[in-house]
Formats: sequence, C-alpha cells, structure tokens
Amino acid sequence: MRVNGRFHRSLWPAPQRNALFVIDQRALPHQLRIERLADVAAVHEAIRDMWVRGAPLIGATAAYGLALQAIHDAGDEALQAACRLLASARPTAVNLAWALQRMWAQLQPLPLHLRAAAAWREADAMADEDVATNQAIGRHGLALLAELSRRRQRRIHLLTHCNAGWLATVDWGTALAPVYQAQAAGIDLHVWVDETRPRNQGASLTAWELAQQGVPHTLIADNAGGHLMQRGQVDIVIVGCDRVSANGDVCNKIGTYLKALAAHDNGVPFYAAMPLSTFDATLQDGLAQIPIEERSARELTHITGRDAQGAAVEVQLAPDGTAVSNPAFDVTPARLVTGLITERGIVAAQADALRCLQEPRP
Amino acid sequence: MRVNGRFHRSLWPAPQRNALFVIDQRALPHQLRIERLADVAAVHEAIRDMWVRGAPLIGATAAYGLALQAIHDAGDEALQAACRLLASARPTAVNLAWALQRMWAQLQPLPLHLRAAAAWREADAMADEDVATNQAIGRHGLALLAELSRRRQRRIHLLTHCNAGWLATVDWGTALAPVYQAQAAGIDLHVWVDETRPRNQGASLTAWELAQQGVPHTLIADNAGGHLMQRGQVDIVIVGCDRVSANGDVCNKIGTYLKALAAHDNGVPFYAAMPLSTFDATLQDGLAQIPIEERSARELTHITGRDAQGAAVEVQLAPDGTAVSNPAFDVTPARLVTGLITERGIVAAQADALRCLQEPRP
Repeated sequence: MRVNGRFHRSLWPAPQRNALFVIDQRALPHQLRIERLADVAAVHEAIRDMWVRGAPLIGATAAYGLALQAIHDAGDEALQAACRLLASARPTAVNLAWALQRMWAQLQPLPLHLRAAAAWREADAMADEDVATNQAIGRHGLALLAELSRRRQRRIHLLTHCNAGWLATVDWGTALAPVYQAQAAGIDLHVWVDETRPRNQGASLTAWELAQQGVPHTLIADNAGGHLMQRGQVDIVIVGCDRVSANGDVCNKIGTYLKALAAHDNGVPFYAAMPLSTFDATLQDGLAQIPIEERSARELTHITGRDAQGAAVEVQLAPDGTAVSNPAFDVTPARLVTGLITERGIVAAQADALRCLQEPRP
Repeated sequence: MRVNGRFHRSLWPAPQRNALFVIDQRALPHQLRIERLADVAAVHEAIRDMWVRGAPLIGATAAYGLALQAIHDAGDEALQAACRLLASARPTAVNLAWALQRMWAQLQPLPLHLRAAAAWREADAMADEDVATNQAIGRHGLALLAELSRRRQRRIHLLTHCNAGWLATVDWGTALAPVYQAQAAGIDLHVWVDETRPRNQGASLTAWELAQQGVPHTLIADNAGGHLMQRGQVDIVIVGCDRVSANGDVCNKIGTYLKALAAHDNGVPFYAAMPLSTFDATLQDGLAQIPIEERSARELTHITGRDAQGAAVEVQLAPDGTAVSNPAFDVTPARLVTGLITERGIVAAQADALRCLQEPRP
C-alpha cells in the first residue's frame, strides 16, 4: 500500500538479514516512525506493546523474531525459549502460535548450521504468502461488493471496526482488502470507520491508511454504528478476526459483537475476513474457550494525542484512582455471522463448511 | 448528593434571584468549576455548549433562564423570544420544550408586574419537583435491585451508559437514583460505567459522582458491555432517556441501542429511567420521528484531558482533515426495553401502559 504515494509493506527484513524493520504504529496517525528490531527481545516488546498489531502481522513479525534468534543461537533450547517468549506476548490471536509452530516444524529437522538461512527463507515465504492470502481475500470480498453495488445502483457503505487493513497484515489487509480491490475496480464505495476504543485503531490507523489510499471514509464513535444501520446507512459490515473456532465463532476486537447484533437486527450482512491461519480447529466453542486478553487500565484512563504545537502528549481522562476493566477482544457467536471471507472463498460460519476449507487442495 | 462530603444540587438560584449557579460539567472530573449565569443568553450558551446536560437538568436550567428573562423584560414578545432561543439549544430531549411550555403557561395569563416573581417560584417548584420525581424513580428502581439481590445472593452488577446521575438532574439522578437508594439500603451493588464516547460522560461524570458517593464502580469502554453480558457479569442495565415516544421507543445517548441489543441477546433486563416529563405523547413512532442531534466533528477528532502538570490540554486524535459523523443520540425500539422506571412506578414500554401514566392521579 501507499504512504505519501510510495509503496510500503508494514514490515520488511534488513537486506543483511540481521534485523527487521517495522512501523511503530503507536505513533500513527501523527508520525510515521520506523523502528529496527535486532533481536528476539525487541520483537517480543514490539508485539507485546503493540508497535505492531493485527493477527496476521503479529504472526509474520514473530516468524522474523525466530529468524533473528536463529542467527545468534539456533539450538533447540534457544529456539524453543524464543518461541515461548514470543507466544506469550499476546494471548488471543492464534496466528502468533500458528506462525511459531510452522517455523519450528521447518527448523527442527535441520542441522544447526542450516537453520538460520532456512528461518529467514521461511519467514520471507510466510510474509509473501500473507500478501497473496490477503489479495485472494480481497478478490472474494470484491465479488460481494460488486454485487451490492449492482443491486443498489448507488454508492455503497461499508462499516468496519478496528484496523484490519494493510497495517494489520504484511500488505493489503484482510477486512480492507476487498475495499482496496473495489476501489481499483471503480466501485463507488464509502467506509464508516469505528473509532475503536480504547486504543483507537480505527481513528489512528484505519482512517490514516484509507486517507493514504484515497478511499472515501467517515470516522464515527463505536456507539454510532447501530444508529446508522437503523437508518439504512450501512450496506455491509466487514471486520477482521483474531481467532475463529471450529464452530464458526469469531473472536475479534472488543465491540465487534455489538456491531454483529446491530447488523443482525437490521438485516445488514456481517462478514469476517479470515485468513485460514486464523482458524483454530482445536477449539469447539469459541465463546467458552478463546482466552480474552485483559489489557492495562491506562488504555482507558489516559490517551495520547497531538497538542496544538504538534507534540505527542498523554492526558488523563478519568478521575484519579478509577477502577477499570479492559478486555481487548470479544467473541461473536457464529449465528450472527453471514459468512467468512477466506483466501479459498466465502464460507458459512459453520463447522462443516469450515472443515472443508481445511482439506488439502486438489 | 455529596461533593467532597458536602451536599450540593447541580444548579441553584442566587439568593437575590438575579442569577443562576451551575456546575460547568465540561471541567469535570478534574475541576469543580461553578459558573454564574446572569441572563438568557448565558443560559442558552450553557445548554448549547453542554456546561449542563442531561434531559431533566436542561429542562430546569431553561426554566431558570426564562425567570432571568422575566426580571429584565417580562413582555410576551421578550418571553417568547427567550423560549425560542432556549428551545433551539438542544433538539432531542423533550424536557427542554416541556419546561418552557410549562413556564409560559404559568406566566402568560399574569399581568406583567407579577410575572418575574411567578417565574422564579415556578422554576423553583420545577427544580424541587425534579428532586421528588427522581427520589420516586429511585424507590421504584430500588425494588428491582432488592429483588435481584435477594435472588442472586451475591453482589449485583448494574451497567449504565452515559450519565443519568445527579449531574444530569437537579439531584439524585434518574438511572442512578435506584443505585443511591440501594446503597442507602445496604444492598451490595457494583456499577459498570460505560465511558460513553465521544464526550466521555461516563468516564468524566458518572465515575466521578459514583466515587464522590462511595459507590463501587468500574470504568469500561463502550465496546465491552456485550462481552461482559455474555460472561454473566451484568445483572441489569439501567439508562436514562431524553425522549420516549407514545409507542415506548426510548431515545437516549448514542450507543444505548447497542447495549439494549446485547441485553436482549443475553437475557439481561434492560430498563430506562423515565421522568414523565420525558414522555412525548405527540410522537407515535420514536425511531422515525425523534430528531437526532448531530454534534461537531471535533468531539471525535479531539479530546481534552489533564496533562502531567495538571493542566487541561486538548489533543488531536484523528488524522488532519478526517470526515466525521457524530449523532448524539439513538433510539432503542420498545421491543428491547424490559420496562420504564417512572415516578409513578415501573411500566412496560407499550402505548397502553404509557397512556395510563398520563392520566391524572386520583
């Protein structure tokens, strides 16, 4: 995707294969701050403190983290310790564990002296596959948007929550990939951007990346989506996801469930864009089994923005000493999900349909 | 209610009957700023710019605004111009129009020289009636909470949205009146406080006033309520309202509808606390007919908080030039409302039940 007109991925390895470059997304939308991560501890910090976020991107970042470990010590013990450290950074998204397992499965059979090079190749391959996966999600989602546009014969309005755009992936995004493909196809499309409290990924990241790509969009409070749907101002909802269980329950950013309820109540189709790496076939019941990360109180009591002089300033919003609960994700029951947009096509959020997707391609 | 242990109303007339004192609620929770309003223009500004807010409080404030006009010029033309000005300050809450109509009906038959004194008497009466109304709402709501507490045999958890506490009324509050009465009755109760974007009335006002009264509470993002209900962590939802139509549709702060959907989906009782002055029998269909105020983009793109030095600082959150839609209210269909807690008792959100309430008392 473009930043100031120049094409970027959201992470890239140093040419010497001794570091990883990422965008410190905490500084957006006010500053494009690029950081160099040189060891697994730095990668762990970047994931834990959300310099990078979004299920696909944290998977790719963790893969490179293991590659960084492999150039220092590629022994089983060191790699497994790195896997444990990286996996502990965020508990909810399954892509993190998936990426680390895939790396380990590649490296473990190899002799020590081949592991570092193999790790970089595998991490590069995973990053490239993420791009291809998201392009495929975009193509399948495009068909939905094209059909809506044809039926409505007017501008269509898509609502999204949080950021599942290129910043949440290596490129293209998941929920926003169909938007970018629709833009390329000349479909008249407008995006309602949920602010997405408490970390404001909608206001800070989605609004910024849509503006960079020139996609028409309007920022709204998370509270406003139901009202817009009641008034017929939303044609479709597409969100990302952090984990989908075998029964089709969708875990995504906190507040997604409320939008799914409103979509259901107003007959608005509700889709989650799901790379298959987000599917967790080991969990039968997402609502009961997916661990929900509880984040710090400070995300609610304080906020950082840009003051009149252009400096980043943190201000306190709540009274001193206010108790806070801050679950970062919720689970939308499969019954509220119209469909899942995967790289292999759109499927119902049902166990049978999801099982088919797991089968090897012919 | 208490502020730093001292009893306060949220507005009070000057003893000389030449001004009105209000709390400039925009400075809370960080500063208790008391402002003196000396003419109708000042009262208009205080309502429009939300120094005071909450349907019952803006009604009472407007009544005093008309009294201030009456001491300067109590002629029909001047009073009617003042009514028009004050009514234009906020379009959604019906209490504002209701209070002005009641004042006008009292003053219009009187000779000019009696109007000013009558206006102050009537405004005082309306303020006192608001207190009595809210105490009655509190008693009826208390019965609900006492029954829940008896059935659950543990601490009960109430969720509220926005601020319908004493700061939204002359005293006691509407949605929070049952909470304060339950506290007095020794019921073990905890309140989930929705932050309530974009103006953060939950974080700034509800959390502050609950802390002042010593009521246990936890601040949450607006996005979190559905998740908490899914996990059985909410026993009851009580919100305020700005207008209720003849068919029982409830207009309240934007985002209320999403909480009502989640409550319905999880079998959690959902109540709106409704002083009868909030009932608008002239509207048959709230969803179609209640005007929804659209407020400024800046409420979403910027936010004011307290910096590390204790100063109030406004910071920008969204990228420069971001388009915003900011509807301030939404309408919850009657089918999602378990009941309305009025000063005359709890009734179903149905046209027949609401008609009964309008009949004169025996």
